[in-house]
Amino acid sequence: MARQAGSKGEETAARIRAAATGLFARHGYAAVSMREIASEVGVGAGAIYNHFTTKQDLLVGLMVGHMTDLLAAWDAEPMAAADAFPAAALEAFARFHIRFHRQRIDEVFVSYMELRSLDQPNFHRVERLRRAYEDRLEGIIARGVAAGAFHAPEPKVAALAIIAMLTGITGWYRQGGRLPASTIEALYVEMVAATVRPKGGPD
Amino acid sequence: MARQAGSKGEETAARIRAAATGLFARHGYAAVSMREIASEVGVGAGAIYNHFTTKQDLLVGLMVGHMTDLLAAWDAEPMAAADAFPAAALEAFARFHIRFHRQRIDEVFVSYMELRSLDQPNFHRVERLRRAYEDRLEGIIARGVAAGAFHAPEPKVAALAIIAMLTGITGWYRQGGRLPASTIEALYVEMVAATVRPKGGPD
Repeated sequence: MARQAGSKGEETAARIRAAATGLFARHGYAAVSMREIASEVGVGAGAIYNHFTTKQDLLVGLMVGHMTDLLAAWDAEPMAAADAFPAAALEAFARFHIRFHRQRIDEVFVSYMELRSLDQPNFHRVERLRRAYEDRLEGIIARGVAAGAFHAPEPKVAALAIIAMLTGITGWYRQGGRLPASTIEALYVEMVAATVRPKGGPD
Repeated sequence: MARQAGSKGEETAARIRAAATGLFARHGYAAVSMREIASEVGVGAGAIYNHFTTKQDLLVGLMVGHMTDLLAAWDAEPMAAADAFPAAALEAFARFHIRFHRQRIDEVFVSYMELRSLDQPNFHRVERLRRAYEDRLEGIIARGVAAGAFHAPEPKVAALAIIAMLTGITGWYRQGGRLPASTIEALYVEMVAATVRPKGGPD
């Protein structure tokens, strides 16, 4: 158990995680010290070690937390059910992915960029979670192919392509831009559906 | 003119750029010093300043160089001509983008990740080049829409989506993986074409 247990300790840990995410996103993991994170939170440099043994521990916690939240949030969606119609499930996945990531731009950036900074065992832990998320989409595509509704010679590659396309929105989307979020979402839903649509097939 | 002119000076500058790209990709710009870059190249810490006044100067040079090479390479492709058939130009663009980026994984990573580290004027310089590249693809898509060959309500958004999808390959592609490079390229060419294919239309 952490030395500072209970709600006060939990709250401090959450503030440390939030500050670390922001600092890592702005400067990169290697350039940020535990002292700087503590200073951003407004606690002593020693206090941070009550919550996180090392900076590596803090980083892997952020990345595992991000992926675990993502998986849990998708698995709670009705269309994540194994018997959902593939086309409806694919649309739901696209909308879910866009909305989840658009609200977590720093987390997405750190999760992608700082894979390089993870120890080998931590890297594999995060990679397993990333694979699990990709597998959810691959499963939808494979079911669509089996049902004759989708065309995708390699469902795994299609899943990676769709995830990259959707995550790319976080690189350029700004609130108050030319197109409203709902329009952007609709455009991507259509492009994602097109990616696996049989040539000359129905909608 | 640089203090070390001629081929010897050029060669050293190229080695400094290559070392900086690798170090920035591994540790991030903020965590790498000019001294470390010099040490990687095997020159004195002072020698590096004969070529690059500041670390910022070195970074923006890498990013501008990457985007300038990319634009020049695409503009030299026959299918970059303004009168190329849109479907053929789109396929050529996809193949070109995959091949160019697959050979420059560190450059792609640094160019994306270190936008945050650029001074405001340098950021705008790099952004203008990125826009110019996106505009090339947007132009192909807009011509395809005008010719009735493509469906894309927002060619700009389609261009961003396609570029993100294609660049995503650099995140997971490894030589000697399960699928040969030519198969992966063919799968992506097909998905890119599908993204802008009119529903129920011909190939």
